[in-house]
Formats: sequence, C-alpha cells, structure tokens
Amino acid sequence: MFFASDNASGVAPELLDALGTAAAGHAMPYGNDDLTRAVEDRIRELFEAPDARVYLVGTGTAANALALGCLSPPWGRIYCHDAAHIEQDECSAPEFYTGGAKLSLIGGLDAKIGAAGLSAALVEAQPGVVHSAQPAALSISQATELGAAYTPDEIAALSRLAREAGLPVHMDGTRFSNAVARLGASPAEMSWRAGVDVLCLGATKCGAMAAEAVILFDPSRAWEFELRRKRGGHLFSKMRFVAAQMLAWLDDGLWLRLAGHANAMADRLAAGIAASGAAVLNPVDANMIFARITLGQHRRLQAAGARYYLWPKAQLPEGGDEAPVEIRLVTSFATTPNDVDRFLEVLAG
Amino acid sequence: MFFASDNASGVAPELLDALGTAAAGHAMPYGNDDLTRAVEDRIRELFEAPDARVYLVGTGTAANALALGCLSPPWGRIYCHDAAHIEQDECSAPEFYTGGAKLSLIGGLDAKIGAAGLSAALVEAQPGVVHSAQPAALSISQATELGAAYTPDEIAALSRLAREAGLPVHMDGTRFSNAVARLGASPAEMSWRAGVDVLCLGATKCGAMAAEAVILFDPSRAWEFELRRKRGGHLFSKMRFVAAQMLAWLDDGLWLRLAGHANAMADRLAAGIAASGAAVLNPVDANMIFARITLGQHRRLQAAGARYYLWPKAQLPEGGDEAPVEIRLVTSFATTPNDVDRFLEVLAG
Amino acid sequence: MFFASDNASGVAPELLDALGTAAAGHAMPYGNDDLTRAVEDRIRELFEAPDARVYLVGTGTAANALALGCLSPPWGRIYCHDAAHIEQDECSAPEFYTGGAKLSLIGGLDAKIGAAGLSAALVEAQPGVVHSAQPAALSISQATELGAAYTPDEIAALSRLAREAGLPVHMDGTRFSNAVARLGASPAEMSWRAGVDVLCLGATKCGAMAAEAVILFDPSRAWEFELRRKRGGHLFSKMRFVAAQMLAWLDDGLWLRLAGHANAMADRLAAGIAASGAAVLNPVDANMIFARITLGQHRRLQAAGARYYLWPKAQLPEGGDEAPVEIRLVTSFATTPNDVDRFLEVLAG
Amino acid sequence: MFFASDNASGVAPELLDALGTAAAGHAMPYGNDDLTRAVEDRIRELFEAPDARVYLVGTGTAANALALGCLSPPWGRIYCHDAAHIEQDECSAPEFYTGGAKLSLIGGLDAKIGAAGLSAALVEAQPGVVHSAQPAALSISQATELGAAYTPDEIAALSRLAREAGLPVHMDGTRFSNAVARLGASPAEMSWRAGVDVLCLGATKCGAMAAEAVILFDPSRAWEFELRRKRGGHLFSKMRFVAAQMLAWLDDGLWLRLAGHANAMADRLAAGIAASGAAVLNPVDANMIFARITLGQHRRLQAAGARYYLWPKAQLPEGGDEAPVEIRLVTSFATTPNDVDRFLEVLAG
Repeated sequence: MFFASDNASGVAPELLDALGTAAAGHAMPYGNDDLTRAVEDRIRELFEAPDARVYLVGTGTAANALALGCLSPPWGRIYCHDAAHIEQDECSAPEFYTGGAKLSLIGGLDAKIGAAGLSAALVEAQPGVVHSAQPAALSISQATELGAAYTPDEIAALSRLAREAGLPVHMDGTRFSNAVARLGASPAEMSWRAGVDVLCLGATKCGAMAAEAVILFDPSRAWEFELRRKRGGHLFSKMRFVAAQMLAWLDDGLWLRLAGHANAMADRLAAGIAASGAAVLNPVDANMIFARITLGQHRRLQAAGARYYLWPKAQLPEGGDEAPVEIRLVTSFATTPNDVDRFLEVLAG
Repeated sequence: MFFASDNASGVAPELLDALGTAAAGHAMPYGNDDLTRAVEDRIRELFEAPDARVYLVGTGTAANALALGCLSPPWGRIYCHDAAHIEQDECSAPEFYTGGAKLSLIGGLDAKIGAAGLSAALVEAQPGVVHSAQPAALSISQATELGAAYTPDEIAALSRLAREAGLPVHMDGTRFSNAVARLGASPAEMSWRAGVDVLCLGATKCGAMAAEAVILFDPSRAWEFELRRKRGGHLFSKMRFVAAQMLAWLDDGLWLRLAGHANAMADRLAAGIAASGAAVLNPVDANMIFARITLGQHRRLQAAGARYYLWPKAQLPEGGDEAPVEIRLVTSFATTPNDVDRFLEVLAG
Repeated sequence: MFFASDNASGVAPELLDALGTAAAGHAMPYGNDDLTRAVEDRIRELFEAPDARVYLVGTGTAANALALGCLSPPWGRIYCHDAAHIEQDECSAPEFYTGGAKLSLIGGLDAKIGAAGLSAALVEAQPGVVHSAQPAALSISQATELGAAYTPDEIAALSRLAREAGLPVHMDGTRFSNAVARLGASPAEMSWRAGVDVLCLGATKCGAMAAEAVILFDPSRAWEFELRRKRGGHLFSKMRFVAAQMLAWLDDGLWLRLAGHANAMADRLAAGIAASGAAVLNPVDANMIFARITLGQHRRLQAAGARYYLWPKAQLPEGGDEAPVEIRLVTSFATTPNDVDRFLEVLAG
Repeated sequence: MFFASDNASGVAPELLDALGTAAAGHAMPYGNDDLTRAVEDRIRELFEAPDARVYLVGTGTAANALALGCLSPPWGRIYCHDAAHIEQDECSAPEFYTGGAKLSLIGGLDAKIGAAGLSAALVEAQPGVVHSAQPAALSISQATELGAAYTPDEIAALSRLAREAGLPVHMDGTRFSNAVARLGASPAEMSWRAGVDVLCLGATKCGAMAAEAVILFDPSRAWEFELRRKRGGHLFSKMRFVAAQMLAWLDDGLWLRLAGHANAMADRLAAGIAASGAAVLNPVDANMIFARITLGQHRRLQAAGARYYLWPKAQLPEGGDEAPVEIRLVTSFATTPNDVDRFLEVLAG
C-alpha cells in the first residue's frame, strides 16, 4: 500500500534489461554513443518533430531548471501556477539556473493556470520598463501537481496568450506520459502543435531509474543548452545508460502502457473512495487522487501500513474520528490491484 | 584497444547485480532509504571518520562544483593546478556553483601543485584587501590529470600551507581509488589525516554507471551541501540506485581490486612502451600513460583501431613517419591483457 | 507643479555647499577619508548604536540589494509586501545580489505587511525541508510605497514574528526621514529597538544628489558587506563626496527639517484635495498622496502642466469628465506652498 | 606631494559649477532628462559614432563589469592582461556581472597584451567543445595599469585577432583621456576605428566626482545594458548630476586639458627622477611613473610626507639606505609643478 509518490517505485524490468545490455563493452562518453543518438531519433519521430533537439538528464529538477535557463534571462519573469513544482519543490533551482529570474505566480483550479489569470498578469507586466523584471516565459505542468491534465485546446489557449506577449512556453512533463495515456492525443498534439517550445519529458516517475529528456522543438537554443547542461554538472560521462533507459521506455509503446496502468490504478482507487462515501477532490486525469477522508479512516490506514501524504502537508491530523483530513495518493507503474483493494478495504473499515 | 578514457568503459557486473536487486519494491525517495544510509555508514567506517557526512551525486563535475560551492564564497579564490579538471574540463561549473569565484592557477610537474608555487601564490594574495578576490580554498586532484599520485606526505605539506592561510582543502578524487590501490596507504591517510576537508570520491571511472560520493569530513557544511545539491538538480528521487552502485563498489574491497586491475594494465602497457623504445613521459601512478611515439606508430595504431587521444589535444599529427607525437592512454577495470598486448604488437610494428 | 516623484527634485543648498568644500585637496580613496569616518560616527551617535557599521552607496536599489545579499543565502526566501519597491521596481536586483533568492509576497493595507499575513506565510514555510526555498529574511518599507508609516509598535510586532522564525529584518528606509519626521519617534525606536537588523537610510529622495547609508546594527556581517559592495561596483573611489552629502544632511537636524517640509506640503495638498470633495485614498504619513479625482480634473491638471503619475500605472484614462481616475502625488523638500496652491486651484477648476 | 593615486584628487572647478547649475529645479529621473540626452549626443559627436549608445555610471568597476556582462555569457572566457584592473582590483566584479565567466590571463610588457600571447591563447581555446569555457571577449586597458598607452595600430592588431576568433573587444578606458592627450589620435581612432566594441570612458580619475560613460559602439546590446545597469543598482535616480559632470568635462576640450596637465606633470616628475640617477622603469605614456629608488630616498620622502605606493605592493622595504625599492607615482589634474619639484628636491636629498 505504497501511495506516497510514484518516485518511490522501482525500475520496470524492460529498462533494467536494457541497462544490462548496455553495460558490456566500451562506448564514447558524454553522449557521443549510438544509444544516445538513437534516443534522439526515436523522440524526433515520436513527436513528429524532425528538427527537435533532445537532451538527457537525470532529474526532473535539472530538466526544468536547465530548460528555463535557456528561456529566461536573469532579469526575466516566468509565469507559472503557484502550485507548480518549479515554485514549490525545487529549492529555487530555476532561480539558480536562470541567474535570478522571478517566478510570477498565477492561480487556477486543479493547479491549471487559468487563461484569465494569465491575461491579467500579462496586462500588468511592464515589458520595456527598465525598473521591472521582464516577461520571459510561461511554464505549465502536464499533468498538474493536482493530477489534472490540460487538453490540447487548453494548452493552445495559454500558448496563444504567451505567444502574443512574445513568451516561449515550457512544459514540465514529469507526468506527461500519464496525460497522454489518459487523453489519447498524440505527443505532438500535446506539445509543439499546441504551442509548447520546450518539453521536459519525464520517465523517472514512470518506470525509469533516472531518465528525463529535454526536447527543444526550437533548435536555436541547442548549443546554449549543451553548455548549460555541462556547466550544471548534468552531462553524464556514461550517458549511454540514461539513453538505454529512455529507449527501452519508449520502445513499442511501453511508456504509455506503464502510464496507462498507473492511471487505471488511480481510477480504481478513486472509484472505490467515492463509493465509500469519501470525497475525491480533484479530477483524476493522471495517477494522483486527492481525497477528503475522516481522521478515523486515516488512523486505520496508517495502522495498516498505508503510505501517503497529508495534502496540504501543513495539516495537523487532530480531533475526533469524524474530523476531516485531506490526503494525496499516487499510483505508479508498480501499483497492483491488490494494493488498491487492500487500501479500500481498510478505508471501508 | 580502447584507451581513450576510463569513462568509456561499462559497468562492473557486481554493480549491475546490485541495481537489479534494488529495482524491486518501493523505497522512500531522495535518499531517505536504507541503501543510502548504508553507504553513508560504510564510508564513515572505511575512512575511520565517524562524523563525516556523505552525499551521493551522479557526475564528478557535480561533486566537485557542489563541494567547492560550500568552500568558497562568490568572491573567493580557489587555488588549483592549471591542468586541473575543474579548470580545464568542467565548462566553468565551479564558477557557476560558487557564484563566480576565481580559480587561481598554479604550476607544478606531473600536474601536481608544487609547494613553492602555492607558497608564492599565498604570499601574493591579499586577504582583507577589499579590492581583491579573497583566498578561499585549495583544490588538488588525486590522482592528477597527468596520472601522478600525491603521497600522504605531499598532501599534508600542501594542506599545511593551506591551513596556515585559513583555507580548507578539496580533493578531486575521480581516480582516488587508483591512487589508493597504488600507494597502499589507507583512505584516511590519503584524505583527512593529510588535511583534506572534502573528498569527492569517484566510482564512475572505475566500474560504476554514475556514482560519486562527496565526503565532508567537517560536518558543519552538511545542510548547506544538501540545499546546494537539491538546488543544482542533483538530488536523485530514486537515490537508492546510486547508493546500490556505491555500496557494491565498496563491498569487500571490490573498488581496490577494480582500480588495481586498471593500474596493472597501465603498468603492463607502460613497460611495453618503454621496452619498445618509445618514451613514457610521466610517472604511471594510476591508470594513465603519457607517451611520445612516432607518427608512423600512431598511424599504424589508428589503422588497427586503437582508440586514444593525442595529448596535448592541439597537436597536428603531420610530418614524416619519424615525427614525434604525444599521446594519452587510459586503462580501466575493463581493460584486458589482450587489449594491451595487441596494442604493443601494433606499436612494435 | 512637479509631483511625479521626490527623486525629480534637485539638491539642497547645504549639501551642495558641502560638496564644494570637499572638492578641494586630496583624500585617500575608497572611504579611507575623514568625512567617511565622520559619517559613520555621526550615524552611530544619532541611532544610539555604538557597534553599528555604516556603509555609503549611491542608490537605494544598491543599498537594498546589497543588504539583502548579506541576509539571505541564494536559496533563501525574503518576505515582503507585494507592493514593495524591492519586488516592483528594482528589476530583480535583490535576486541578482542574493544569487537567486525568492521574494515571497504578502498582502496588507496601505502596503504595510499585516501580521496575520506574515504569520500565515511563516506557518506555510518549510524550514529544514530541502525541497523548499528556506525562510531567510523579512523586508519592510518605511514609509511604505503607499505613503503609510509603521509605528514602532507595528515594526516590533512584525520583527517579533520574524525573530521567532529565526529571520533578520531589513528596512527599506528610502523615506525613513519622512516617517521619523511624522511620528516623532527617535531613529533608534524606529529601527533597532523595534527589531530592525539592517536599515537602508535614504537621503537621495530628500535633498541629496546620490547618498544612501546602509546601517548594519549587527556588525557581524560587515566584512561581507564590504566585499559585496566592492564586487557590485558600488565602492566609490572618491567616497568623500557621498560622505559630504550625508554629513551635511544629518547636520543639526537638517534631514528632519527637509522631510518635515515635504510632509507639510503633502498635508496641505491632501487637505486641499479632501476639501475639494475628491477622495484621498491612503493615510498621508509621509510625502505621498493617493487620490481619486475625475477625468475632467485630470485633463485640466495635465493641461496646466502638473506632473504626476496615474496609480496604478496601468489605468487607461478614458471616458467622460466625471469618470474616476486615481493618481499619486509626491512632494519633496523642494515643493513650495505655491506649487501646492496652484495645483489645488486647477483641481478646483 | 600626493602621488598615491589620481582618484585621491578632488573635483575640477568647472565640474563643480556644473553640479551647482544642475541642482536647481526639477528633472525627470533615471536619465530621462535633458543633460543626460545632451551627454549622449556629445559623445556620439566626439567619437564620430552616430549609432553609439552611451550610458553613465558612477564607478569604473561598474562600467567594466556591466560592459563585460553584455559581452560574455556565464560560460565565457575573457582574455585580459594578468595585471588588468578587472583581474587584480575589482574583487571579481566581472565574474559577478557575467554570472561566472573566466578571466584568462595573458602576459606582455608594460601591462600591454602581446599579440603573440593572445594568438597562442586563442589557438589553445576550444570553441565548440562543451567541456571548456568558451572564448567570449578581449579586454584591454588604455592606458595600461603600468602607464603605457597602446597606439591605434597596436589596438587594431589585437582587435583583428579577436575579430578572427569571433570575440568583441572591451576597452577599460579609466585613463583613456591620458592616452588620447598623449598620442594625439582622435577618440574614434583610439576606439571603434581600431576595433573596439565597448569603451568605458572614465572621468573620475581626471577631474570628476564620480562619472564614467559606457559607450556601446554596437547598439544591439543597448537594452540588455540598460537592464543590467538597473539590476546592478547603477541607474541613478538623479542621473542629471552624473551627466552634468560628464558634459562639463567634455566641454570645449576640458577633458584633454586636464589629462594633458596630468601627463605633463608625470613627464616633469619622470625627467627629474631620471636626472637624479634613479631608474624610470616603464614608458610614461600617461600619468603614472614606476621608478626604482633607494631605500634611503624612500625614507626621506616618507618623512617629508610624500604619498605613493610601493609597487609591487608586496615589497618589504627593509635593508640599508642603498637597497632598491620600487614605487608607483601617479599625477592628476590637481598636481602642481610645486608638488613635483618638492618631491624631486627631497629625492635629491
């Protein structure tokens, strides 16, 4: 009953096998190897983006921060949701990699940026006024930190606003696979066709050990990205092992099967929770469920060994058994129906 | 015949097995797992340093730059050899992580910092003069970029000078294992007992996939290091896979066996080169040989598929067959006697 | 009728004279001169703070950003009002000088930080959690950007909250003189006795050419400040000319007479506006008035040559003569009763 | 007998008068005033550079560091002489403003960069190799820190090398006026016609209080410069007072008269020193003399109140009266023939 985070899961067997295969023999370091080149080609093909440039790194924070470093000058302003991972959970890595840009926070339901909020923020911005940080980029998370997925139309609407203000669009795709698996749109429709300039495509939370791809649909910033990656210490010498993971993950649709499984487990969990009478608080577009249960249920689940977070984390779970408590549950490629059913049993009491 | 670099080798089987074992099941992310804790304990024990703090990262550049970020303020001056990896090969990562410190370059044979050169530089320094970058740290490489190893006494002599000037000492130990295997001194004698404050212990070049440990012998900077690592995007969510590599590498002396093998292959190669009449240019204290051969030999080796670098890289290999050319050869845990002997055969012509 | 900003005024004659006197002869550069030492002593005495360290710079942005650089690490979080000058008007200078800290914005009437808002923000903060930027400092403006002044008790209440969370307190005192002249509290009561650790005391807006003093009540960060000032290019070689201004400004209470005059002109203006039936929107604690007038009045004033800003700046002054428009008026040491009365006449129509 | 530095002099009367005139009345802040616009026009005319953009700041360090920030990315390499002010005396301000670029040091007589040294450094550079900091800019000082002036041909030769490597050229012109006054070449010949892209034109050491102009001959980086200046805290609100100084300084050739006077005083001093039998060590192309005198002479001069620096500063003036000691003497617009003659008298004993 491990629902604390999808990054607490292990490695999918197909990826592990690929690492083993790659481990033998020599290969030129720093990405000058066949596997890395193959990943680049595979992603270009998958995204129908023949000019895209693809770079591998080991963490989502590195992917996001390096990408934003290419999009915003030090005096830039990056618009993002106030729940965004880049704002909440990366210890100011974007500020570090941009050289001190500002994150300008925008509200919106389910951690989706609202078009109205973005419009209002852009109206208030003062491009060309030297006293003010300059509008530089829009960053959106797919799926969001509250488990919702933007539709291609929603992405396009935000991108259009950004484009009109001259801003490139970054997508934190740590759970891009879950969103694609859910919505059934093509990778291209969910990214560059909807106006995304840079996608950070995460495999780590969905079956990899440590593998994230930064996809620059506009190749003009490619060399700068390479320098930033090296300078940030993110250019692996034995890059082929990151590439091997990513290749195996994308091979024959595995990535969508793994993500689809996580989503299905989330659906099963959400349905059971709702059936139990507890409230599911957000759309379950990906592999996360936010629910309001009772303190009695929480205590029971804890006692039974279930692992998950209170969300928001600052809650104090005090009071009688009927007091409400809000929790976050995350499923993964490794979640089993058994895990889910056992959780629901304990919840039911 | 792959002698281009030790980072072009693969992964030792013991480490690969450890990854497979770690891949099953769930574990809390970001280093809050049993394997990570076990590595920390193992290293404290191995280095006889019960108060040391140990942090894992994925690249040597990250290890060095994060460590130096903890040792030098933005206005600091870090003394290092002009051939040091941190100066030559990290695309100003130390400058990035320190917020703009200066690397002050010192000469010395075999890429070892000479005590006289360090003394002179420290005399010229102007601590307390606001116009001048302030002396902040000493950084030495073990083994050096020219394949030499400092003895514990040599390290202690440099550390003493640093200490008198109030400077902490950083050791880039990307090939620390090779130096220890060669000199037979204990890890403690080669590090904190000789005055080293922070050791970046590299496993990647010696059998790991991507695993480096930063060992803070002085724990007072531990929390700062953790923040810097996260902010740099170097805190792996599935940290246990880095830990699994490092644990297996240190287990039962494997690290010294792997390094000792690389050293032995280097000795065999060096002896053969010398026997052939070509000059071996530097001490072979680790797993690197710098040699002067003829252009004819070079052409023959290239034609036979041998991989290595001209060193210095800027050489133009032009001229007659008797023209000299200088090359660098690097062995690794994966080099075989066959590789070596075949190389020597082709060299002999 | 120049009410656009107090920084559009000239230089008070006493300060100009002092510059003339200082211009003759030689003096050691970089603050190693008698006038600079005299300013330091004068400010220590005036603030009853014998251990304070005093540093002169030429702009308010430099003063604030250098001070915050000493208070917050790069991964820090600085709490300030969302209308604060450091957030709105310094083009991310605090982010530059801190190496990428975050400004966390708090609301509150009249651009004063509310204690409730600060408490809530501190509760949400996650000190010790490596994923989150770390609480580092509180910054308040005296007077605020909406012309209100904190009482010593209000400052103390905020400082207490900050202190409990381990945060030092920075005061942007670009209009500190106006607040002191208004409230009649002593400089010490308005600063360190109320818990302020660093005060940026501005003279430029109140009669100087370019002179700001950073007062470190806690001298432990003095040397770091000196290095940061030099490294930022803010250590004037002919420092005595900044010192001459500041000395003359503080001499014999001139600073409070100049500020008191600006305040009195603001009162006269506010009283006249209110008498005219237009609304004065914020307390007039310093030398700024925010008022709602009609578009007809605005057009008349513009035609008569009055200079002031619409506030908020994004307003579009369109519509009929009775449409409302909100404006900001700033008085200064150089504002004359004539200026004020002429403005009121035109306003009255 | 004040020969410690030209920045220990006061303010030329013409500039002081200009400040007085500017002090009355109101003017829009931040450079949106007539005086600032007039300076820009004046400098464009003087340099025959109608497209140049001109920005005023208050210190030479700010001018240099802001300019270099526009020329080099964070991962750049700036070639300069190892005696350059930007390397020796600015506490790593260039590293701060560039975000961590490297200064690559080149030797050369009289603190002039030698073309051979620059060529060699450029050959060693590895543009396009991601492991290495990337060649980004050349910086030269006119006059140099050892009092020599580059001829236009010498500048052009270095610029040509830089241009071939794709590098823009920065000139630290803190004593540009002295060099122009000496060589008689036009400002254009000494700057953009010889390949200089950005000139930092210093007035402070030659009669101003605090006034430096950054001249961007290539206007494409103008907006970036403006943002960097503001973000660095170097955009003065009452900019007209910097402009007033610069205008008066350039008016009717005053700048060259002031510089010419300083040079003449240096000549008189150098001639006297040489006549006394002491050695003048470097060419006296500007207002600095480096001389070797005896310790006896030094003691006598000190006793008589002469102010100057030992150079290099690290010398220990110990020994008998005949022991040699090397000193630096700097004249200024304010040096009188009397000062010089008195110095020579004491020297003669």
